[in-house]
Parts: sequence; structure tokens; C-alpha cells
Amino acid sequence: MKKLKGALLLAQSGGPTCVINSTASGVFLTALKHKRIITNVYGAKNGIIGILNEEFYDISKERKKELKLLKNTPSSLIGSARLKLDDPDKNKTNYIKLLNIFKKYNIRYFFYNGGNDSMNTVYKISKFMKENDWEMRILGIPKTIDNDIENIDHTPGYASAARYIATSFMEIYKDSIVYNKPQVTIVEVMGRDSGWLSASSILAKEKGYGPDLFYLPEVVFSEKTFLNDIKKILKTKNNCLIVLSEGVKYSDGKYITEHYKNLNIDPFGHSQLGGSAAILAQLVRDKLNIKVKNIEFSILQRSASHLASGVDIKEAFNVGRLAVINGLKGETDKMISIKRIKNNPYTVNYPLVPLEKVSNTERKLPLNWILKDNTGLTKDFIDYIKPLIEGDPKISYKNGLPVYAKLKLELIKKR
Amino acid sequence: MKKLKGALLLAQSGGPTCVINSTASGVFLTALKHKRIITNVYGAKNGIIGILNEEFYDISKERKKELKLLKNTPSSLIGSARLKLDDPDKNKTNYIKLLNIFKKYNIRYFFYNGGNDSMNTVYKISKFMKENDWEMRILGIPKTIDNDIENIDHTPGYASAARYIATSFMEIYKDSIVYNKPQVTIVEVMGRDSGWLSASSILAKEKGYGPDLFYLPEVVFSEKTFLNDIKKILKTKNNCLIVLSEGVKYSDGKYITEHYKNLNIDPFGHSQLGGSAAILAQLVRDKLNIKVKNIEFSILQRSASHLASGVDIKEAFNVGRLAVINGLKGETDKMISIKRIKNNPYTVNYPLVPLEKVSNTERKLPLNWILKDNTGLTKDFIDYIKPLIEGDPKISYKNGLPVYAKLKLELIKKR
Repeated sequence: MKKLKGALLLAQSGGPTCVINSTASGVFLTALKHKRIITNVYGAKNGIIGILNEEFYDISKERKKELKLLKNTPSSLIGSARLKLDDPDKNKTNYIKLLNIFKKYNIRYFFYNGGNDSMNTVYKISKFMKENDWEMRILGIPKTIDNDIENIDHTPGYASAARYIATSFMEIYKDSIVYNKPQVTIVEVMGRDSGWLSASSILAKEKGYGPDLFYLPEVVFSEKTFLNDIKKILKTKNNCLIVLSEGVKYSDGKYITEHYKNLNIDPFGHSQLGGSAAILAQLVRDKLNIKVKNIEFSILQRSASHLASGVDIKEAFNVGRLAVINGLKGETDKMISIKRIKNNPYTVNYPLVPLEKVSNTERKLPLNWILKDNTGLTKDFIDYIKPLIEGDPKISYKNGLPVYAKLKLELIKKR
Repeated sequence: MKKLKGALLLAQSGGPTCVINSTASGVFLTALKHKRIITNVYGAKNGIIGILNEEFYDISKERKKELKLLKNTPSSLIGSARLKLDDPDKNKTNYIKLLNIFKKYNIRYFFYNGGNDSMNTVYKISKFMKENDWEMRILGIPKTIDNDIENIDHTPGYASAARYIATSFMEIYKDSIVYNKPQVTIVEVMGRDSGWLSASSILAKEKGYGPDLFYLPEVVFSEKTFLNDIKKILKTKNNCLIVLSEGVKYSDGKYITEHYKNLNIDPFGHSQLGGSAAILAQLVRDKLNIKVKNIEFSILQRSASHLASGVDIKEAFNVGRLAVINGLKGETDKMISIKRIKNNPYTVNYPLVPLEKVSNTERKLPLNWILKDNTGLTKDFIDYIKPLIEGDPKISYKNGLPVYAKLKLELIKKR
């Protein structure tokens, strides 16, 4: 196949992770090695929004050293967006705009780094470009701390968040037992629809410093069960440590925050500013008359790059690198996936998966990996997650603080 | 002076830090080297409560290797307490109990590891023992993330919390600018009466990734100024990152949570479960109609030992070690202090300070170190804090997670 000559454009989408910059590093450093075919290397400023505004960073202006440092720099240096394109059957406006922009800048390689929704977006874009005879190589690159994309062993970003969660649980556990007094600690973890992130705290439990109770979105939430579970734990020990997914739902399908919002009042007579853990903390205080702490990891679980997983950084770099290599081979309409070959030693390869097989799918934690009494996860899950959080990021520290990549981020002239 | 032969007892008090175990390590490992004089080495289970209950861990039963690992293990392995003893002039009961217990177990060396209040407690205990002719060496060992003890350059525990706060601010900053949309992020940091902890986020700002605005307990809080400050920042940039001490107070002396609690209603018609940041986030949303995130570091800022400062771990060990050495020399009624000799290279020594000079004092951040427009701290403060967060903890990781000390914690038989 004749190699398609033209510009390469990387855009990122959705919430950041510790390692999407590592993916960008993989794309950029690899692309810059193929100057005879890849005429320009661009990063879209703030994802799809930047493309529609023709705001492209010229990556050839960046220093290699800084592009390497991207591997250990959290969040997205080129910026992200949360824009969902209309379906082209309903509204073609943006697709036509994209086509014209791709033509104007001779963009032939378009890589989109995101989650489920993004794989769907890139699928629709690719279809539209084909229908309009603009030849491109369009590939999806997976990214989400939620680990909920189908047809991939695990998503880049997940393992680093998992390592942060497990380490922080060890520290919280240690802190929570320091006084000789009964205490319940509820820690809220991200995950609107799946419990992958919360489940990772089992690694802390494996070490002897983890949660007693696990509440995940895959299992219907009941306050009665929740309170009984806590009472059971407090019969044998002074402290009860709980991991709570923000996305747990009551039997009516409502999230905890929705449940109390719709009543417009919480069980204690007032409505809520806090998250789910704050609501349940008040419930436990009220019903069990015990000291309760609630903690939210908030955005730290997706940005604490100082605790990123070495495996994750490497894999995130590789999916970026392989997008370029596969694009150059003529591959298109696919996502770079990760397939685990074995656990000892941990080995993966990176097959290509058709975009239609991953767009808008959503992978939940298998129900048979969740212990029925809410006290943990099975060995199958532990075997699954354990190798993923190995290895340290190669961060350089200066004055005790991490050194991040500094990019020039020069926008190209609009044509 | 004839060396006083008898048992040594270490007790800890108040909230844990990343490095109080390092202090315990310093006390225990040093004490175990002087078996001919120090007949027994005890750790009180849960501080003063454990002493009153005669619950003493026999530290001679522990493996040296594990006592060394204590240096990098967060929180308090022997346990702490928040018990304040009555004044002996009002109620001698517990003092008499302590005297009898000290005699029964021949405790001649008593070291108390805590903050301001604890230095006062140990001062009163020491006075009582003298009045009752029980010869002892009683020393205070400083510990508090709050950095608010007088007559010490900085308190063990502060630097590690500062390093956690500065690193986390860098990560939060990176995350907060990822979208191209206006956003205010309010991060609540511990510190009921002083701003030392919040101020440490200036180190992130020094690197280019820190807060735009600082609200510290040393400066009277005004919602009007607060909102105007934010508006000013948002005129020049899209994002505003704020550090807020939990202890900021209105001109009437009330904390934010108290202020709204006493009204029993917040500005939006409902009372509060969240902390100060949650309240102010709602205020900003309401008044400025902008996306606001609120984050609380909660107990992670005092327990994230994976990010502890190497300097802090070493100094915490040394104050413990030097308590034993000075006790053996006959010193009593003093606190092991830290004095900075110079910054380049950073050098300290450990003078002794009479307990009455530190008990119940409270050191605030000097007002002339705080910028008047709430945008930061002066170079004096930066020079002060910079060397403290240097150096990494020597943690061993297994399967990507830190390895903590495992002590047997065998209680001695009650006599």
C-alpha cells in the first residue's frame, strides 16, 4: 500500500488521567521520526473544540527532552474537551466543518484519545470522511480511569488511579485506627457506572490495611444492608473502613445524591452540598450514633502522577506509539487495544479492535468477582489487578517536588 | 551525675503525622542500646489512656528490622489519644494514679510526643512527680503537622504534610486547566488557628502550578473580599485555584462552618454537612455563576507517608533519639527543639527548651510573610519552607505498594 502523506493530528477527550500525556508522548515522539510521510505533527488545543476552531499546536517546535518528560506529567498538556458531536444523520454541520478543516490542513492521520463515547465519536467521523472520499487513517486510543471500555484487558489510566487508591487506603487505614475509639470511615471513589476503581482498594486489604466493606455500582444499594453490614463489622472490631463508589444506586435506579435531591431533603431535614459519602456519613451518625469521617479522593485519583503505575505509563506510551506505527501501515477505523498474554511475568500485546466493537459499549466489573457479603473481591479480581500497579514513574524531583514537562505550545497560523 | 536506672516509657498524643513512628523508631532503637541503665522499653498503648490502664507494649520483643521500618510507616503504631488531664490543682486523681503506676513499673524515663497541649500535660506531670519525690527524666518530643509550637524552627510532621500539599496542588492545578472553561477550585487544608499548612502550597506556585489565592486564619475572612479577589483573577485567566485554611474566621471570630451553623441555615436555604470549602464553593456558584470544585485533603495530608519529606523523617528520628540521649544525661522538664543553623547547606541542631516555654503557646504565621492581596507569601516564607521538603522517604515497595512495619505489640503483664 502506498503510504499516505500528510499531517497527523492528536486530540484528547474527556477527563484527564495520570498517563494521557504519556500517550501524547508516544504519538508525538514516534510521529516526529517519520517526517517524510508525516509532514506535520499537530496537537488539537482542547480536543474537538480546538479542531473546529483550527487551533493546532505545532509539535515539531517542542524540545525532545520536554516531550519525553510528558510521560510523567499529569493531566493533558494540550487540553481536553467534553463536547459530544451530534449524530451525522441528524446534524452534519460539524462533520462538514471537520472535513473541510482536514482537507485545508491536509490532515491524513487523526488519532483520538478517549473513552467509550470518544470511540463512538471517532467512528462516526471516520465513516463520514470515507463517505466524502477524504482518505485518512483514523484510530482510537483508549484512555479512562474508569476501565469500562470493552475488548481491552484494561484501559490506560486505570492502573495509576488504582495504585493511588490502594496506597491512599493503606494510609487512611493506618490513620483511622490511631485512637482507641469506635469510628466509621467512608471513602468515596469515582465510578458512575462501574466499580473498577473502588474495587482496586482490595489491594490495600491484601496487605492488611484495606476497607472492611465495599459498595459498588454493580450491586443494588440498600441503606438497611449498609447499616447492618457496619454493625456486623463493629461487633468484632473498633473501626470500620468503607469504600463507596460515587455511582452506587438504590433499587429505583437513583444515585444517592439524586435520591436525596429528589426528596429535596435528606433524612436529617436538610438538602445536600456534599457527595454520597457525606450523605451516608450523616446517615451512619444518625442511626448508629458513632464517630464518622467521610473522605473524597476527588480529582487526585486521576491526577496524582507521583504515584502513577510504571506499567501504566509504559502501556499508555505504547498505545500512542502503536497508533502511529499502525496508521503508517494503513490501518484505520480501529482502536489500539491491550491484550494480556500472561501474568508471570506480566506480558501484553496490542491488537487492533474495530471501532464499532468498542464504541458506546460499557464494561462492568463481573458480578462473580464481587463477594456477596460486601466484604471484598475474589482472587480472580486480585490476580487481574495486581500486576497492573507495579513499577514506579521515573520522575525527577527538584527541591522535593516533581519536574513537569514545559511545552511551548505554539499555535500554527490559521489558513 | 549517677545514672538513673529504670524503665523508659514513650507515649504519643493527638493526631498522627507521617513521621511520629519515625520518632518512636528513634526512641526505641536508641533506648534498646542502653540496657544496663534502661531496664525496660515500653510504648504506651493509646497514649495517656494506656498509661492509666497500665497497658504497655514491650518493645524489647520487637525485631530491629521492623523498628527501623517504623521510619516509613504512617500514623502511630502504638496508638494515640486525645485525653486532656485536669489541672492538678483542681483534680489530682489521675496524677496520683500516674505516680503509683510509674513507681509500680519503676518508670524513670517518660517521653511524651505531641503538640502544644501535650507539652503542657507533660509539664504538669513532671511537676507533680517532683513534688512527690519520684525522680524521673521527663522530656517532651515535638510533633504536629500544624507547626504551631513556639521556640522551635519547625515541628516534626509539618514538612511531610507541606510536601504532600505542595505536590497535590501541582497535580490539582494541572487537572483544573484541562478544559477550556472557566472554573474555580477551592481546596481546604487543615489548620484551625494558623496558616502554616495552607501557606506551604506556595511551593507549588513557585513551580508555576499553585494557587492564585490564599486564605489563612491569620487574616480576617470576608466574603466580599473573597468574591472580589476571585473576580479579579478571572479577568486575566480562565481558572482560579484557591487554598483555604479550615480555620479562617470572620470578623466576629467565627469559623465558616460555625458562621453558617449558628444561622442554622446557609445562604442557599439549607444547613451544612460539608466543610468550609463546600460552603464557599456554593457561595461562589451562587454569586458568580461559574463552575466550582471543592476538594478536601482531609487526613491524607497527615498520613501520606509515601510523599513524606526525607528531612522530616530524619529530624523526627533525631528528636526521638536525642530524647533518650539527653534523658540519660540527666536532662528533664525540657522539649527537644530544632534550631536552624543555616540554609546552604541546610543544617540544624537540637537544643533543649524548658517545657514552660513551649507549653500552651501557639505560634502563628508572621503577618508580614502574608501578601496583603491574598495572592501568596513572601520570599522570607519561601526561604523558610523550601529546604524542609527535600529528600525522599526510603520506602520499599512490594507489588507497587509500600511496605509498613509490623510490630508484635505484646502487652506486658499487669502487676
